[in-house]
Amino acid sequence: MTNPSNKAVVLLSGGLDSATVLAIARSEGYETYALSVSYGQRHAAELQAAERVAQRLGATALQRLQVNLDAVGGSALTDRSIAVPEAPTSGIPVTYVPARNTLFLSLALGWAEVLGATDLFIGVNAVDYSGYPDCRPEFVRAFEALANLATRAGVEGARFRVHTPLIQLAKAEIIRRGAALGVDFSETVSCYQADAEGRACGRCDSCRIRRDGFSAAGLADPTRYQG
Amino acid sequence: MTNPSNKAVVLLSGGLDSATVLAIARSEGYETYALSVSYGQRHAAELQAAERVAQRLGATALQRLQVNLDAVGGSALTDRSIAVPEAPTSGIPVTYVPARNTLFLSLALGWAEVLGATDLFIGVNAVDYSGYPDCRPEFVRAFEALANLATRAGVEGARFRVHTPLIQLAKAEIIRRGAALGVDFSETVSCYQADAEGRACGRCDSCRIRRDGFSAAGLADPTRYQG
Repeated sequence: MTNPSNKAVVLLSGGLDSATVLAIARSEGYETYALSVSYGQRHAAELQAAERVAQRLGATALQRLQVNLDAVGGSALTDRSIAVPEAPTSGIPVTYVPARNTLFLSLALGWAEVLGATDLFIGVNAVDYSGYPDCRPEFVRAFEALANLATRAGVEGARFRVHTPLIQLAKAEIIRRGAALGVDFSETVSCYQADAEGRACGRCDSCRIRRDGFSAAGLADPTRYQG
Repeated sequence: MTNPSNKAVVLLSGGLDSATVLAIARSEGYETYALSVSYGQRHAAELQAAERVAQRLGATALQRLQVNLDAVGGSALTDRSIAVPEAPTSGIPVTYVPARNTLFLSLALGWAEVLGATDLFIGVNAVDYSGYPDCRPEFVRAFEALANLATRAGVEGARFRVHTPLIQLAKAEIIRRGAALGVDFSETVSCYQADAEGRACGRCDSCRIRRDGFSAAGLADPTRYQG
């Protein structure tokens, strides 16, 4: 069955990757419905970044959903008593939020079904990333299989597709691609512990990967750092 | 790998089915962590019912998570402008909430991972039910496959199991089973449009299936009806 809609739901955190994904979805002709999830993360700066990015890149709508994952904790991003590591760690780091991308995609799926859309976009990356299990291709394929079974649309013959245009790109390639598509990276916030003004710590895993990416891409790093 | 934990996360809506599932999980020796989701449904009566049921049946903890699905709408349960049908309809009814069980299971999965649990319980039923796609065995199996790929626990070798002890039972069998295990059905609320005191309408799909179940089970219906 051909997808009769050119609507797509794009998960938009306000970081560098998801901003680039939104720009890619727009460049492919999709009418984009950006979904930003407030899940009890450490700071609201990335949610504000998502608003700026959605507006600049011409998203048709921006939906913000709220889930109080801080009641569950279990991650440095949702439990303020767990420190964000400022040096590389081995294995899956404590910034992993249990089942976060499963949750985000389930929210995207529900909204997509209401909109009549079958295309979902998520900025997962399995190259320059923190080793999270729910960023891997096999996870994405399993979610697609689930989506077709989980929904009325799937029962009626729709086939959901989870687009992961960044999954095999190095950070530098993502940055070049986003820059070419007009993403203003100064508006994005990647830091795990940005301050209230969205300024980055420069020390966490996410900051390190981002800074190295600008360096490898040969582009000036527009990130606003603290202090 | 054998599950090293006897903890289980049990999705508990406050209705008849999930109360019975909680009683079953307890009877099987699990230490039960009940999860109740406030998702913008029409009434809070079922959330209060979940509290009563969790206490009576000896749940170790009750966690309430909130998601504002009413911002997305698309269902008679989350959009008050869509009426709850009071006569049987064909196909999947408008009370279907897009991707609801995918969302619920993803929340249960995240909490389970934080608790070190790999057993999830959900009261889906594919016999006397409303025809929702995310109540079918194939959906449940697909979620289990996803869970193992989505999580740190899965990467480390854990195997998640989604228990669906009611999936092939008729409503009357569920009621007999729950009654034998000490569920007080007068404390449960199944109605899609219960009033603030938890009294049932007696006319919606959920009320009809429930009333017919008590009748078929040969048990008095303890439901408090409106008017």
